[in-house]
Amino acid sequence: MTTPRTATPAPDVCPDDLPFNVFARACPSRDTLEHVTGRWGSLTLGALSDGTFRFNELRRRVDGVSEKMLSQTLHALERDGLVHREAQPTNPPRVDYRLTPLGAAVADRLLGLIRFVEDQMPQVLDARERYDRQRAE
Amino acid sequence: MTTPRTATPAPDVCPDDLPFNVFARACPSRDTLEHVTGRWGSLTLGALSDGTFRFNELRRRVDGVSEKMLSQTLHALERDGLVHREAQPTNPPRVDYRLTPLGAAVADRLLGLIRFVEDQMPQVLDARERYDRQRAE
Repeated sequence: MTTPRTATPAPDVCPDDLPFNVFARACPSRDTLEHVTGRWGSLTLGALSDGTFRFNELRRRVDGVSEKMLSQTLHALERDGLVHREAQPTNPPRVDYRLTPLGAAVADRLLGLIRFVEDQMPQVLDARERYDRQRAE
Repeated sequence: MTTPRTATPAPDVCPDDLPFNVFARACPSRDTLEHVTGRWGSLTLGALSDGTFRFNELRRRVDGVSEKMLSQTLHALERDGLVHREAQPTNPPRVDYRLTPLGAAVADRLLGLIRFVEDQMPQVLDARERYDRQRAE
């Protein structure tokens, strides 16, 4: 049985030196993973992988997100260096959001996962049906 | 500007025929993505990528998860066909959890993302420091 680095028995915090370890509850990499993979973080990164958008354009793309949640999500992603926020010197002022190079690299891997999940949905729905049928018996 | 399939303007539900679309709020692929990328789902899939484990072994590996949350997480992943649960005919009874082939394929992609995020944490922490310094000015 191989043991990848990410699943070594979890210390309380990740050590001061590398590597970071999301399995440790106090490691800051766990926060970042949550910003990236959270319900709205993942959809926001996915939407921004298409280009530069204003806040309201993003809201329309991420179907179902509230103004407050999108705002919080963008702040967390900006603080982690994944999203770049740029206020345009126009009147009225306009704020554009786009991925940083690091954000684009993260979004690539995330979209790979998203597309794979979408492609496997027929299998997933079959599994749900089997599971629910067994539970009902 | 290219427009990947996953970011087409979101309909309310994904169509009855393919493709599934996580950007649509009522598409079942969004649930599955959340089971896979949620706080505990992602760490549970990552831990199970090492092999077969009992419930309490998993709890120790996924640092910080409560019994209730791990149980809910495993049920959702089992229903989606990503985790196989097997009650061993021993006394006392023992329940083993392992990834299905589909779960292993999803976990591979997820671990690719996790390892990438861990590797980029020095950059992320630098970005956070810059962001917080600018806010404090």
